[in-house]
Amino acid sequence: MDREMTGLPDEQAETEITDRLRRQMEFVLEADKLKEIGRQTYRSDGVQKENDAEHSWHLALMAFLLSEHANDSVDVLRVVEMVICHDLVEIDAGDTYAYDEAGKLTQRAREEKAAERLFGILPEDQARWMRDLWEEFEACRTPEARFARTLDRVQPILLNDATGGRAWREHQVRAEQIFTRNRTTHEGSEALWQYGKGLVEKNIEKGNIRKE
Amino acid sequence: MDREMTGLPDEQAETEITDRLRRQMEFVLEADKLKEIGRQTYRSDGVQKENDAEHSWHLALMAFLLSEHANDSVDVLRVVEMVICHDLVEIDAGDTYAYDEAGKLTQRAREEKAAERLFGILPEDQARWMRDLWEEFEACRTPEARFARTLDRVQPILLNDATGGRAWREHQVRAEQIFTRNRTTHEGSEALWQYGKGLVEKNIEKGNIRKE
Repeated sequence: MDREMTGLPDEQAETEITDRLRRQMEFVLEADKLKEIGRQTYRSDGVQKENDAEHSWHLALMAFLLSEHANDSVDVLRVVEMVICHDLVEIDAGDTYAYDEAGKLTQRAREEKAAERLFGILPEDQARWMRDLWEEFEACRTPEARFARTLDRVQPILLNDATGGRAWREHQVRAEQIFTRNRTTHEGSEALWQYGKGLVEKNIEKGNIRKE
Repeated sequence: MDREMTGLPDEQAETEITDRLRRQMEFVLEADKLKEIGRQTYRSDGVQKENDAEHSWHLALMAFLLSEHANDSVDVLRVVEMVICHDLVEIDAGDTYAYDEAGKLTQRAREEKAAERLFGILPEDQARWMRDLWEEFEACRTPEARFARTLDRVQPILLNDATGGRAWREHQVRAEQIFTRNRTTHEGSEALWQYGKGLVEKNIEKGNIRKE
């Protein structure tokens, strides 16, 4: 290309594209497939269901806007990294719906295999870093993982409430299923769980969630 | 609800839901509309176009995986917050396509009005914080904003290349338009711009981008 024509500044140095950068960009492109992984929750418009990438974006926004409500002081960047990456394994393993008991039996094995392949595209140090990040989220033992998990549980409640409980009604979800699933949601944030629980109770009253 | 039945631990304290939390959650719900704002770039599958929420998620992932390539040392959390929020104003103002010159004349006015309304849903301190964050991104003068801008410019190049230049061809984009738009992209990261420029040049050769 003629630099004059392209408008590129003359002083711009040519830098070599490293194998490391190529692997990172290959991963970034592969990760794009998260936009294809559908979830059962409807967007607030009540028409289209959200996908994993949209869901993860939503959790990241919540992470820094709501971190003051975490029970324990949290490293917000770590929480954001966790929610941005927590569903990547679903590119290979697919989304397992919260109340799909059969699917949950094979979920861990499917997701581990996915983590191997996907994170393995990255340079070795980053592959390890991302595996640790994902395992930390899954184990849910650090304040960051507990808060990330709380966000991951409360966000669909917010959307379900906003859509007149559409996904709950379609799946005929029972109150007991929701409260069992959310047994530990308060551990990341009492305040956010109180908020979510209030919405659940309202939707039980309205008949959007089955009492039994 | 009967606690025994719902499986909630007895020790779980009831906490008051504050007006502050209500405003935050109202904002989180309003922000959900970002998932409805379409962009011109196709996802890597080449079938569906991505939306602003998916795009913002993708940039956040890139922010922490690629921060080592920033020209200046950056506060990664600040970059992530910026890319997660940078398109929120488009909920009211709509997406202005990169090469829509008429739309760009009114873009700033439309987006300022949107920022007023949207960020105003948040508690006052957070509304101010988000306005500052957005203005910092727009002004593009800090290392964090420059790096965020570079990601925002390189990500669609990556997707356009992956889809055989589909969006470029549909809009009959010219090389000169791309290089003018990317005149400052190298300021956030020489390495990422070199990578992006290589893809642009490849697509000029292939005829996916018009030479003139």
